[in-house]
Amino acid sequence: MPTVALDGRGAERGPETIVAGARGAAADGIRLRVFGDPATLAAVEQIDGAELVPAVEEITNAEEPVAAVRSRPRASVVLAAQDVAEGRSQAMASAGSTGATMTAALFALRRLHGVRRPALALQLLVPGRPGPPALLLDVGANADARAHDLVQFAYLGAAFSEAVLGVAQPRVALLSVGEEANKGSAEVVEAHARLARAEGLDFRGNLEGQDLLAGAAEVIVTDGFTGNVVLKTIEGTAKTVAEAVRAAARSGPVAAAGGLLLRPSLGGLRRQLDPDTTGGAILLGLRGVAVVGHGSSGPEGIANAVRLAARTVDQSAVERTAKLLERAGMTRGGLRGESPRAGMRDRKEL
Amino acid sequence: MPTVALDGRGAERGPETIVAGARGAAADGIRLRVFGDPATLAAVEQIDGAELVPAVEEITNAEEPVAAVRSRPRASVVLAAQDVAEGRSQAMASAGSTGATMTAALFALRRLHGVRRPALALQLLVPGRPGPPALLLDVGANADARAHDLVQFAYLGAAFSEAVLGVAQPRVALLSVGEEANKGSAEVVEAHARLARAEGLDFRGNLEGQDLLAGAAEVIVTDGFTGNVVLKTIEGTAKTVAEAVRAAARSGPVAAAGGLLLRPSLGGLRRQLDPDTTGGAILLGLRGVAVVGHGSSGPEGIANAVRLAARTVDQSAVERTAKLLERAGMTRGGLRGESPRAGMRDRKEL
Repeated sequence: MPTVALDGRGAERGPETIVAGARGAAADGIRLRVFGDPATLAAVEQIDGAELVPAVEEITNAEEPVAAVRSRPRASVVLAAQDVAEGRSQAMASAGSTGATMTAALFALRRLHGVRRPALALQLLVPGRPGPPALLLDVGANADARAHDLVQFAYLGAAFSEAVLGVAQPRVALLSVGEEANKGSAEVVEAHARLARAEGLDFRGNLEGQDLLAGAAEVIVTDGFTGNVVLKTIEGTAKTVAEAVRAAARSGPVAAAGGLLLRPSLGGLRRQLDPDTTGGAILLGLRGVAVVGHGSSGPEGIANAVRLAARTVDQSAVERTAKLLERAGMTRGGLRGESPRAGMRDRKEL
Repeated sequence: MPTVALDGRGAERGPETIVAGARGAAADGIRLRVFGDPATLAAVEQIDGAELVPAVEEITNAEEPVAAVRSRPRASVVLAAQDVAEGRSQAMASAGSTGATMTAALFALRRLHGVRRPALALQLLVPGRPGPPALLLDVGANADARAHDLVQFAYLGAAFSEAVLGVAQPRVALLSVGEEANKGSAEVVEAHARLARAEGLDFRGNLEGQDLLAGAAEVIVTDGFTGNVVLKTIEGTAKTVAEAVRAAARSGPVAAAGGLLLRPSLGGLRRQLDPDTTGGAILLGLRGVAVVGHGSSGPEGIANAVRLAARTVDQSAVERTAKLLERAGMTRGGLRGESPRAGMRDRKEL
């Protein structure tokens, strides 16, 4: 079982959530190193297989990630990333600032050969649909993406889907505004053309917003701006509709009785709409494993973030991704003429 | 009461839907000129205030809009647009190909002085929330948008919201991936900076996906790629969640009884999720009025598309938009160095 470096700071629901989450993951046999405030995380020491590593500094959501990560080497998230880079842990997970987690991971773990921009990938759980969830990427690592990046995201997502989510031959789709190859922004149209002739990918063409949750593809590729907006739109819409149903059930005694009778059957729907279920997003394209948990994670969300990190290590996802990129010729030329930090240019826009 | 030129072809649910929709709108006193096949639309002649104008050609969804509109001057949607340009009607509406409708309108009605790219705007109805719906634009007229375009969309949306939706001082927000001014793609960050100092707009900053339906702004600005994806994502998610609730109500006898009791109270939710309720999107930035109905419109959707077109004329929305653009200085410089057809460059990407 791998060791996961868990950021013990930054979770919106406080250190108790971290402790409870660590306990849940440790019960599965995962070893943990938890970085944070010894005063509030003392209970970690009581967990079998978990170790507390003091980290006196914290990076908050409000801070500019690159500047904060650079200037605060003893921040919990930076120490967690460093722990993976130095081999004491095999993966990191944080429910703190998304920007700081991505930046710390990128600095410490570095990009795979040929990867221009790492991408943040998230599993989309579909209410009422069993089977493997679709993987949407990028959901926010890069605010701007070129056609070349979108093609690379397709490989990163396919490798992860196969290695960690257990999909034999993941179908890949490109998010756009119509099914036809010529629909979309200039970069999307160009990405479509390249994906259509890409080797080693089961590319199924464009996919529109209404089909995101329809199960037509296991990997859905988009730029980080659209992906982030779409992800939050799904969350917001699901919440709004669920609230409208609840409001209807409060609108009178007959409806209220109906709501009470229906309630137990809606448990599965509630669970599928709960971000805790997936454990968070994963940053793909690095030489190590970094999971970005939902800021509002409960104990189950923290435990699932650690489990996702451990499973990604167990399945050798990084090595398999590197091999797929090499077979696809993505390690040649992609970085020609670029500085090794090209991927950081937009970091401030996160 | 204005006369509306209604495209009698292209509606997915057939000419009967057009006839029934025309009857509904005519009952409100709106005069109609319906363009289409005399054989299937003969019943239009029986409607008080409606006139049938034969149009032998049709443009389908599958066709490339610019080529089709150019080569088929006798297509119903082209004749309807021409009817407005020549003053026999004051507005047009179509539930046929969105691309063809936009192209025909753009060619015949032309852009307002200073407008680089017209934008397609749609009212977002929020389940369970009374009050004016938010206007989202662009939902698909332009696949790529520059910062300048986004600022212009803000003025176009604000003018329409005030004139037609009756919002006294519409709050304007920019769709992005975070609240901070520096979050988003390069064009969005630049648009934010310009909107923050724009005159005559109540700009409230960035708005994220989860807040699209939260009622924080009456005008939400984005590029046509993101807007189109987001719009379809809202539709798809609402449908998926509603289906999951229905499935729960079929999961056993107790749940089924609950569903039956709750059902009557869910009527409002169903109505708010039905695209027929708003009548469709409106193309803003032209010297005339063009409404793009939902392809799957029922009779009420067609009638509401015609009503929206008539109301837009009644409220002098075009004139008020032109004045707002002039006050904002948007009629100066915006077109400098551009060909008059600049807005058509991306038309093929629709």
